[in-house]
Amino acid sequence: MASGKINVSVENIFPLIKKFLYSDHEIFLRELVSNATDATLKLKHLTSIGEAKVEYGNPIIEVKIDKEGKKLHIIDQGLGMTADEVEKYINQVAFSGAEEFLEKYKDSAKDSGIIGHFGLGFYSAFMVAEKVEIITKSFKDEPAAHWTCDGSPEFTLVPHDKTERGSEIILHIAEDSLEFLEEYKIRELLTKYNKFMPVPIKFGTRKEIIPVPEGAAEDVKPEEIEVDNIINNPNPAWTKQPVDLTDEDYKKFYHELYPMQFEEPLFNIHLNVDYPFNLTGILYFPKMGADLQLQKDKIQLYQNQVYVTDNVEGIVPEFLGMLKGVIDSPDIPLNVSRSYLQADGNVKKISNYITRKVADKLKSLFNENREDFEQKWNDIKIVLEYGMLSEPKFYEKAGDFVLYPTTEDKYYTLAELKENLKDNQTDKNGKLVVLYASNKDAQHSYIDIAKEKGYQVLLLDSPIVSHLIQKLEADNENLTFARVDADHIDKLIQKEEETISKLSDDEKEKLKTSIETVVPKENYTVQLENLDSNASPFIITQPEFMRRMKEMSASGGGGMFGMGNFPDMYNLVVNTNSELATTILNSQEDAQKDLVKQALDLAKLSQGLLKGEELTAFVKRSFETLK
Amino acid sequence: MASGKINVSVENIFPLIKKFLYSDHEIFLRELVSNATDATLKLKHLTSIGEAKVEYGNPIIEVKIDKEGKKLHIIDQGLGMTADEVEKYINQVAFSGAEEFLEKYKDSAKDSGIIGHFGLGFYSAFMVAEKVEIITKSFKDEPAAHWTCDGSPEFTLVPHDKTERGSEIILHIAEDSLEFLEEYKIRELLTKYNKFMPVPIKFGTRKEIIPVPEGAAEDVKPEEIEVDNIINNPNPAWTKQPVDLTDEDYKKFYHELYPMQFEEPLFNIHLNVDYPFNLTGILYFPKMGADLQLQKDKIQLYQNQVYVTDNVEGIVPEFLGMLKGVIDSPDIPLNVSRSYLQADGNVKKISNYITRKVADKLKSLFNENREDFEQKWNDIKIVLEYGMLSEPKFYEKAGDFVLYPTTEDKYYTLAELKENLKDNQTDKNGKLVVLYASNKDAQHSYIDIAKEKGYQVLLLDSPIVSHLIQKLEADNENLTFARVDADHIDKLIQKEEETISKLSDDEKEKLKTSIETVVPKENYTVQLENLDSNASPFIITQPEFMRRMKEMSASGGGGMFGMGNFPDMYNLVVNTNSELATTILNSQEDAQKDLVKQALDLAKLSQGLLKGEELTAFVKRSFETLK
Repeated sequence: MASGKINVSVENIFPLIKKFLYSDHEIFLRELVSNATDATLKLKHLTSIGEAKVEYGNPIIEVKIDKEGKKLHIIDQGLGMTADEVEKYINQVAFSGAEEFLEKYKDSAKDSGIIGHFGLGFYSAFMVAEKVEIITKSFKDEPAAHWTCDGSPEFTLVPHDKTERGSEIILHIAEDSLEFLEEYKIRELLTKYNKFMPVPIKFGTRKEIIPVPEGAAEDVKPEEIEVDNIINNPNPAWTKQPVDLTDEDYKKFYHELYPMQFEEPLFNIHLNVDYPFNLTGILYFPKMGADLQLQKDKIQLYQNQVYVTDNVEGIVPEFLGMLKGVIDSPDIPLNVSRSYLQADGNVKKISNYITRKVADKLKSLFNENREDFEQKWNDIKIVLEYGMLSEPKFYEKAGDFVLYPTTEDKYYTLAELKENLKDNQTDKNGKLVVLYASNKDAQHSYIDIAKEKGYQVLLLDSPIVSHLIQKLEADNENLTFARVDADHIDKLIQKEEETISKLSDDEKEKLKTSIETVVPKENYTVQLENLDSNASPFIITQPEFMRRMKEMSASGGGGMFGMGNFPDMYNLVVNTNSELATTILNSQEDAQKDLVKQALDLAKLSQGLLKGEELTAFVKRSFETLK
Repeated sequence: MASGKINVSVENIFPLIKKFLYSDHEIFLRELVSNATDATLKLKHLTSIGEAKVEYGNPIIEVKIDKEGKKLHIIDQGLGMTADEVEKYINQVAFSGAEEFLEKYKDSAKDSGIIGHFGLGFYSAFMVAEKVEIITKSFKDEPAAHWTCDGSPEFTLVPHDKTERGSEIILHIAEDSLEFLEEYKIRELLTKYNKFMPVPIKFGTRKEIIPVPEGAAEDVKPEEIEVDNIINNPNPAWTKQPVDLTDEDYKKFYHELYPMQFEEPLFNIHLNVDYPFNLTGILYFPKMGADLQLQKDKIQLYQNQVYVTDNVEGIVPEFLGMLKGVIDSPDIPLNVSRSYLQADGNVKKISNYITRKVADKLKSLFNENREDFEQKWNDIKIVLEYGMLSEPKFYEKAGDFVLYPTTEDKYYTLAELKENLKDNQTDKNGKLVVLYASNKDAQHSYIDIAKEKGYQVLLLDSPIVSHLIQKLEADNENLTFARVDADHIDKLIQKEEETISKLSDDEKEKLKTSIETVVPKENYTVQLENLDSNASPFIITQPEFMRRMKEMSASGGGGMFGMGNFPDMYNLVVNTNSELATTILNSQEDAQKDLVKQALDLAKLSQGLLKGEELTAFVKRSFETLK
């Protein structure tokens, strides 16, 4: 029997680390600046607890390009390393210094914001460099060390005469990575990954003009001086307490996050939780323009102020994907797949927390300033309606703030809607009928008719509204939705009274026959009704159920299979009490046909069905009668 | 001075491999079945070149669940390992056997289809198993070996009495991964990753009925036997030569690839290239339904018949993203980021090759059966038009097959279009004016007017068409596009002749003033024209330039900044030679107003501009005149 230890052979693992661990080469700069930040914050912590007897000062990190020498320098003023520590932390790959440090100073280090989360970070330097040097001087009273390695596992370690505390990493950029010696490229990377890191990062200098002091002599000119160009904001808004931030501060941060975004956000939600996981962040509800697709400015994910990704799938509930802002959490596993994220309990908790916070915020906005909330409704409704359909927990809370606007710009909650409509819009079977329109223009004549009856009509124009009302009907007894053009209004909300017919049954039969000879059977069913004599003589309606199922099937998920391919079916409601009905009945056959044809065309116009050749002929005919 | 070797410490790297290398835990099965396939194909190769003196036979791979024992078995009949080889290949992590093998048998191994590309594959077993056993018997005359490891770097290696050639991997599934003992789950994974792997994979058995032989005695019953349930097709269509495949074969494979897809593909493109990179595959042009968004069945990427991903961004040119099918290439780097892919020269070559092949195929389809190609045009145009805009190389070739259909269902190439239109539609300045409509219904009256003049009208209804014609105009001298409703037809294609006016200048001035008192200035500019007396009296037009810029800005990328927010501006073309013009001129003020109002409403109807309240009032008024 043999037993032993699995032997990871360096020659083989080293290229693997270089090649695969970080698929994105540009990551190296994030890693090295993270390490520098780490070393700085560690020193801060040690001085604060008295273990390091040195002055912490105002350390910065510097990134410097030496284009001629083909070198990139990352210099920090952090705690530095002794030769022994280089041996331990650098030569023993994957022996992550930060982890050991955290272990040792567990509780006191918790809040010092140490990053060091990326494990093999340092070695990512070899993805772009053919040779790497470390020149480092510990805060301890020991000589500086100089480590050099050309990417093979061989290294050299010699003393160095550096006297200032901290580490300098020198990358000798490889021939295939010379882009990383371009100023624009490094600026781009620093801006992408390090824009909100907690230690100031200097990249070059810029000129600043010192204004002439008041009362100075006339020949004193304003002085121009060179100052450090700091590329990051070490204290971004999300790291502060909500009480310390004004509305202005939130807006300012929004534009800091998305410099190309000119619109103001509608409102923000500050996330801040310690337990059972750690998460901070600010989410913004943007104005939803017509350009729903153009989703460039996404929610950004950070870990301890280091940018990670703008793909927050699985972490942020899907319905909030259109929001903007930032989330910072050390508790989100990186580099893992979607299916893993979905299964991860912690991630599920984060997602639920975000849902809850958004719901709470919406509720308080609604309660604090309802008028303002109503004005914003149009911009936020699609997110909220989608949330109601996709997140049961959000649906539960939606009653507190989700609004149902009328075509008259009144806004009701579902409870208010029921309360306000119940007296007038409950039909003879005790069902509360909520009338709605999907388009004020296209359904104008139908809305008009409903209003004349004293009914209120909702304006529900989101693409997913058929799904939503289907759900509301299922969850609310005796509540039913009907689009205003689903039938004649007296049929949509049936009351006890009935209008008497002016025509005899015999006359009705004759009328129906005359109409049916003109109206194509395959699209229209003729439906005679005894309506008010002033009501429109011909009205085209489309039954609610079929239309809704077709819409649901078209917008995906729901409805009935294959329903989308059914032809559109309409009813032609003919008002037997209208003058026109009598006129048709009393006309000669030819005149009868012309009348029915013209009346059908007019009814089609109201329903948006008169198109193409038919419309051209109608307009031509009408111009003829004018001249 | 010190120097030495960087020491990768196993205790630290092992958990990293387990955790990060494969972010998706389910990958383990793909890796183990790949290894088994590898071991089988290696043996095949060795027997074929005479290095292994054993019978290759018909080896299969078996995957077996032992739910009670909480174990998953992967069993192959490949070349197996001796104890020494286990020591070398398993205990020395990252010492990839396949690579060494390939190195040794370089040229002869090239075509034997060895996978072994995934490096640390075997260790992915520890993502789901708390203990892993290998029982393996080499094809060489040596005893079998039994290796056991519980995920720590400690292992045991002892002899075993296994006598059949090959390896058995036994995973003792961990408590948090028990889903991998469910039959449905394993079936799902095998179907996802191993459906087309080159060695038959057995998963369970199924019953098969042996029919009664003809002429058998009456009491002979059909026999039911158990047969191996092979879950993969080891010889998928793309691995064969195009000459060996019929249209039916290609269709069959399409449904094999997408079992939930019921539509037939329009046509396919067989990819097959050896140099300068290796790539095989079949792409399908699907029928583009109304459900452009529902893009579930994507192009699948394989490496040596192992499924990798269905995200082919960067590899397949963006405009072909709506296609379906499979691409198999060992030369595509895995696990790398998009920006890296974009920079990779090999990947760029692959993308260019695919573009070229698609263009070639389209050209040959067009040449071989133009009628059939025209019938498919509507389903493929959006892809091709997008390709013309996004890939210069594709644009260059587009002249050979891209079609421009007319409203009369004629299809022209650009060259044919120019040739056919030049006599009749060249204006007095020598510009060839191509008339087009975006919607046959909505622009029906305008199309009618153009046809009466003997002009041909294209039907260009893709959402990106404004970008396309903008490009065509820029690249073709003296070619200009105008939508049929951009102006009156005589203005769109200006010829030398001019119609004489029936009205004097004075009368015209009076007419214009009367009309302008009724027509709202902020939306309409009144434009008097001496047209044919039979032409429509009032026509609303919308200038081409503004409308096109607005459309381009709405569909993104192009147009002018902020143009999308400009109000719609129209011209009201009044035919001074129409009878109505004279009638208006000779009417009293009130009647004049009514006439202009009604005529404007009719012109708006033709342009789809009469809506909402205005339309309701129009219909009501028209019903009044009927009764």
